[in-house]
Amino acid sequence: MTPASRPGPILVINPNSNEAVTAGLDAALEGFRRAGAPAIECVTLREGPFGIESQAQGDLLIAPLLRLVESRPDAGAIVIACYSDPGLDSVRSITRAPAFGIQESGVLAAMARGDRFGVVAISGGSVGRHRRYMRRMGVLDRCAGDRPLDMTVDESARGEATFGRLVEVGQALIGDGAEALILGCAGLARHRAPLEAELGVPVIDPTQAAVGAALLAVVV
Amino acid sequence: MTPASRPGPILVINPNSNEAVTAGLDAALEGFRRAGAPAIECVTLREGPFGIESQAQGDLLIAPLLRLVESRPDAGAIVIACYSDPGLDSVRSITRAPAFGIQESGVLAAMARGDRFGVVAISGGSVGRHRRYMRRMGVLDRCAGDRPLDMTVDESARGEATFGRLVEVGQALIGDGAEALILGCAGLARHRAPLEAELGVPVIDPTQAAVGAALLAVVV
Amino acid sequence: MTPASRPGPILVINPNSNEAVTAGLDAALEGFRRAGAPAIECVTLREGPFGIESQAQGDLLIAPLLRLVESRPDAGAIVIACYSDPGLDSVRSITRAPAFGIQESGVLAAMARGDRFGVVAISGGSVGRHRRYMRRMGVLDRCAGDRPLDMTVDESARGEATFGRLVEVGQALIGDGAEALILGCAGLARHRAPLEAELGVPVIDPTQAAVGAALLAVVV
Amino acid sequence: MTPASRPGPILVINPNSNEAVTAGLDAALEGFRRAGAPAIECVTLREGPFGIESQAQGDLLIAPLLRLVESRPDAGAIVIACYSDPGLDSVRSITRAPAFGIQESGVLAAMARGDRFGVVAISGGSVGRHRRYMRRMGVLDRCAGDRPLDMTVDESARGEATFGRLVEVGQALIGDGAEALILGCAGLARHRAPLEAELGVPVIDPTQAAVGAALLAVVV
Amino acid sequence: MTPASRPGPILVINPNSNEAVTAGLDAALEGFRRAGAPAIECVTLREGPFGIESQAQGDLLIAPLLRLVESRPDAGAIVIACYSDPGLDSVRSITRAPAFGIQESGVLAAMARGDRFGVVAISGGSVGRHRRYMRRMGVLDRCAGDRPLDMTVDESARGEATFGRLVEVGQALIGDGAEALILGCAGLARHRAPLEAELGVPVIDPTQAAVGAALLAVVV
Amino acid sequence: MTPASRPGPILVINPNSNEAVTAGLDAALEGFRRAGAPAIECVTLREGPFGIESQAQGDLLIAPLLRLVESRPDAGAIVIACYSDPGLDSVRSITRAPAFGIQESGVLAAMARGDRFGVVAISGGSVGRHRRYMRRMGVLDRCAGDRPLDMTVDESARGEATFGRLVEVGQALIGDGAEALILGCAGLARHRAPLEAELGVPVIDPTQAAVGAALLAVVV
Repeated sequence: MTPASRPGPILVINPNSNEAVTAGLDAALEGFRRAGAPAIECVTLREGPFGIESQAQGDLLIAPLLRLVESRPDAGAIVIACYSDPGLDSVRSITRAPAFGIQESGVLAAMARGDRFGVVAISGGSVGRHRRYMRRMGVLDRCAGDRPLDMTVDESARGEATFGRLVEVGQALIGDGAEALILGCAGLARHRAPLEAELGVPVIDPTQAAVGAALLAVVV
Repeated sequence: MTPASRPGPILVINPNSNEAVTAGLDAALEGFRRAGAPAIECVTLREGPFGIESQAQGDLLIAPLLRLVESRPDAGAIVIACYSDPGLDSVRSITRAPAFGIQESGVLAAMARGDRFGVVAISGGSVGRHRRYMRRMGVLDRCAGDRPLDMTVDESARGEATFGRLVEVGQALIGDGAEALILGCAGLARHRAPLEAELGVPVIDPTQAAVGAALLAVVV
Repeated sequence: MTPASRPGPILVINPNSNEAVTAGLDAALEGFRRAGAPAIECVTLREGPFGIESQAQGDLLIAPLLRLVESRPDAGAIVIACYSDPGLDSVRSITRAPAFGIQESGVLAAMARGDRFGVVAISGGSVGRHRRYMRRMGVLDRCAGDRPLDMTVDESARGEATFGRLVEVGQALIGDGAEALILGCAGLARHRAPLEAELGVPVIDPTQAAVGAALLAVVV
Repeated sequence: MTPASRPGPILVINPNSNEAVTAGLDAALEGFRRAGAPAIECVTLREGPFGIESQAQGDLLIAPLLRLVESRPDAGAIVIACYSDPGLDSVRSITRAPAFGIQESGVLAAMARGDRFGVVAISGGSVGRHRRYMRRMGVLDRCAGDRPLDMTVDESARGEATFGRLVEVGQALIGDGAEALILGCAGLARHRAPLEAELGVPVIDPTQAAVGAALLAVVV
Repeated sequence: MTPASRPGPILVINPNSNEAVTAGLDAALEGFRRAGAPAIECVTLREGPFGIESQAQGDLLIAPLLRLVESRPDAGAIVIACYSDPGLDSVRSITRAPAFGIQESGVLAAMARGDRFGVVAISGGSVGRHRRYMRRMGVLDRCAGDRPLDMTVDESARGEATFGRLVEVGQALIGDGAEALILGCAGLARHRAPLEAELGVPVIDPTQAAVGAALLAVVV
Repeated sequence: MTPASRPGPILVINPNSNEAVTAGLDAALEGFRRAGAPAIECVTLREGPFGIESQAQGDLLIAPLLRLVESRPDAGAIVIACYSDPGLDSVRSITRAPAFGIQESGVLAAMARGDRFGVVAISGGSVGRHRRYMRRMGVLDRCAGDRPLDMTVDESARGEATFGRLVEVGQALIGDGAEALILGCAGLARHRAPLEAELGVPVIDPTQAAVGAALLAVVV
């Protein structure tokens, strides 16, 4: 943090237009809200797609995302709450506020909780993208596995079946050698604590990880 | 976090016996203390050496460190506040509370603030140890450089000259390609904000980084 | 190539709106044009920026770039002729035609001409982006250095001084251990052969490298 | 390319003495032959072994290979058409003409067609050699798998069964995460297009890849 | 070796207090004892734990280990004969005599006997520690696998069943791609030669490897 | 070692035809000769070149080298005493006796003596080959530097000036971060001990390292 004065809010941007997702993020971050601490404000990117499941959808929302960031010069820090970290490099290039992506933050948080981590992906299609991203981060040797739930974002969100599937995939990742797990999606936070209790290894919610990193960046 | 109830305090252990260092840590962490948030308690390892400047000193304090950790089953999380992360693996093996080392946490925090980071070491002798540790972490490709202040811990602590030297070494690291800097010592926190302002790149205090990671680990 | 019939043209897209750059690309690719071979068609992305010097500029042109690609289902292969490879992942996700970025292709071509290669960047600001990209490619150990001309794209294009500066930077890269050089910009092709003659090491024009890769992909 | 005049032919050397293999190479390269383009001339190393299946066979043919190269100072570029790239370093050390190995070129071509590639080896014995070679190239993180057909070169060449086995092994590699495949032998080119059509991922013939690279190196 | 005079003995320290293990080491090293060669002296760390199965046990023996090393300034070289290499960095920091850990030495010896090696661990709990150690060494790409016997140290030592289990695990590692095997424990030396004969690949006893390295270090 | 009977001699092959070099090897290995230990026999490859300074020279001696190896089925182990490790893979493929190259062995020995090592090359031309070889070994992160004496093999062998130049280059490598040094040539053994005494860091003679590794491989 550069300013000596009270920092502005941590702006958590849900880059899809689904307000229910934003509400879920808001709930997941309740534990970070304290009197006197920086505010945590969750906003919806109204011009974003309803869901983000492809590379192109992620890239095409960068234009409205940058406009949103520019409209909020008061933000003390910015979190982009989609596991593909869309537009993160661009956001960093247009603002001096620290900016965080949830994939990057989730991976870094997991690296302090186990020597190797596993990633629970929503769909098989994202596994390759995650791997490319972790290679770019230079941390591929720390990843024990990346396995999909094989659900749509929508199914995983509603999901009576979601928790059972998370347990299955989590156990497979532990078998791969994972000592900590990352939920590879912004919308699974409510399963974090129960999954950690069930599996006995740390489970990281990536949005919480990014907000934790943002709080560090703005602390005086 | 495992318990559903309120988590115990984050125990920040200064593994040397210098109470002034503990007091400095306490001050550096003020910004994380909030009503309702987990307490942050800084303690001195009385049986530790007065300063930790060698591998052997770090290894020999593990015995009293483990006793201290065992005497505090109430701790919600543990931070070992010496940049060589002494005893971190052992502490992790004897407690279920999440445990953090400040070197590991400092490096991970820096990786979200710049593609490559630089480390400000106290003395030349620690540069090789840092490098070995970062290789173990699998993140060596992200380190642009590790340069010493060439001061004793004592000089750097008192130090009218310390800030000037930090600026010099920081500029050299930026020349190496560093986009963020890590203060490679538990006792330099008060220089963090001024150095960041002077150099124009993020500067990470590793103890703050570890406490930030600990808060994430215990948030409900 | 999948189709047994004659493949469509190799579409070389200049993603900035500067027609002079497109004309330069067209000239640089003359040597690949043969009777009976796939056509090589250079087009300008009219909605692109006049020059691309920032991350945001590269990301913001993805929307019109995807529209251009979608308007040309006849293309046998696609080359994005800007060294930051803007939109490459997205283009690949929306078309079955093989798509190539010139940074990726330039690096891969250089890896067959020397054990370590050097990159001539236009400005210092792009060096970090190149490095991140090469880490993502997993080839960082093959890069001996990346050094800037410290010119604007415009200066380098007009540039009486450009060739002299290329020689200087090329020699420095050879001193770093480079056995082959990559011109890190789409607009330097006319200097390739003279620079290779002057320095005595292979010099790669990345647009030619990408078109070479595209011709391979469409050959029957 | 250094000379300003018309480059000499691309000399594709089959380093075994089996003329049928040379004829197959000749056919596979037909698509690169164009009026006005550099000639592509396939030659047999008469003093080579009838087949190359061991490290020693590959090393022992270097002597006649170097004599052949020395006898052809007119060559514009040289391709060594055996997947173990025998003598490549030596050839490079005795000629100024650009020289290419088909393993190296095949791997580099595949890296522009998918984030991770798979290699179809002829026999299990070559898998370890491939891996060592890719580690030397520094690209091991990009290889999803290397699986053998478990055939002799001879069986694979005659092979009614070959295509079926290629499909099986290709599918297994796709299951490993491969997004592109490399035919790990000089003699499988006629299966490239049908296999690509069958499997739906790019399939690289390494000799075509090397000739593509050679054409780039000699283009004016 | 620095001194021109006859070097002192190679001190092989069994860091646990089990004299039977020391006797086993003594027998395993018989083949290195020659008239005129440096003596090889196996000693028991009486203050060590009876067995070393956890990180904390390894760290807590460093204090008496350093005292033992300091009490033997006559030692020409030092070998710490426990596969977790406890206290190796500390020992190196307090003595000028060359010091060797058996994990490090075992891995390095295996790297000259096969491109990829496999490690036979005693228990599953040590696999992660081995991996972290090999990453620190920077050699993870050479490890084909690390598989546990799933025995206690005690069972493996008495073990009629031990050899059969070694064969099973060794075969699995060969299936993983291992071309050489390392016995991941100080107490399995008597199985080395029979296992090598049975499996047909080199099998490394790590204590022998460390003593071999020590002899090199003290040879004139 | 496979045979239960007394192992045959360790055959140290000087692959050049210079008998003076063989005599030097013989002297350098004196310290390993003990009553009852395996014999160490140094032989000259009479059909080798007088000196080996290029890739082609190294490759062309493989044919007579393999004949020599085949003529000595009694050898217990084989050492190829030229720092470019010519023919090592081929030798390994034709004999069951363990075979060692001095570059590989020198690097592995150095890795037990310092976290990072430096290599003293004879000429600048070999630096790139060393680097490629260390990348193939997967140990490049452990190399702090590789610097040439800039002498011919002949000059370095006669060399009154050699020791002074070794000190200069050694100091530069220590400045690069090297904690141990490797003499990158078979003919510098007599300088090992004096250089180690002068510079205060371990200095590895690679032929001694390979013979040490061979003795380990044949010990019962």
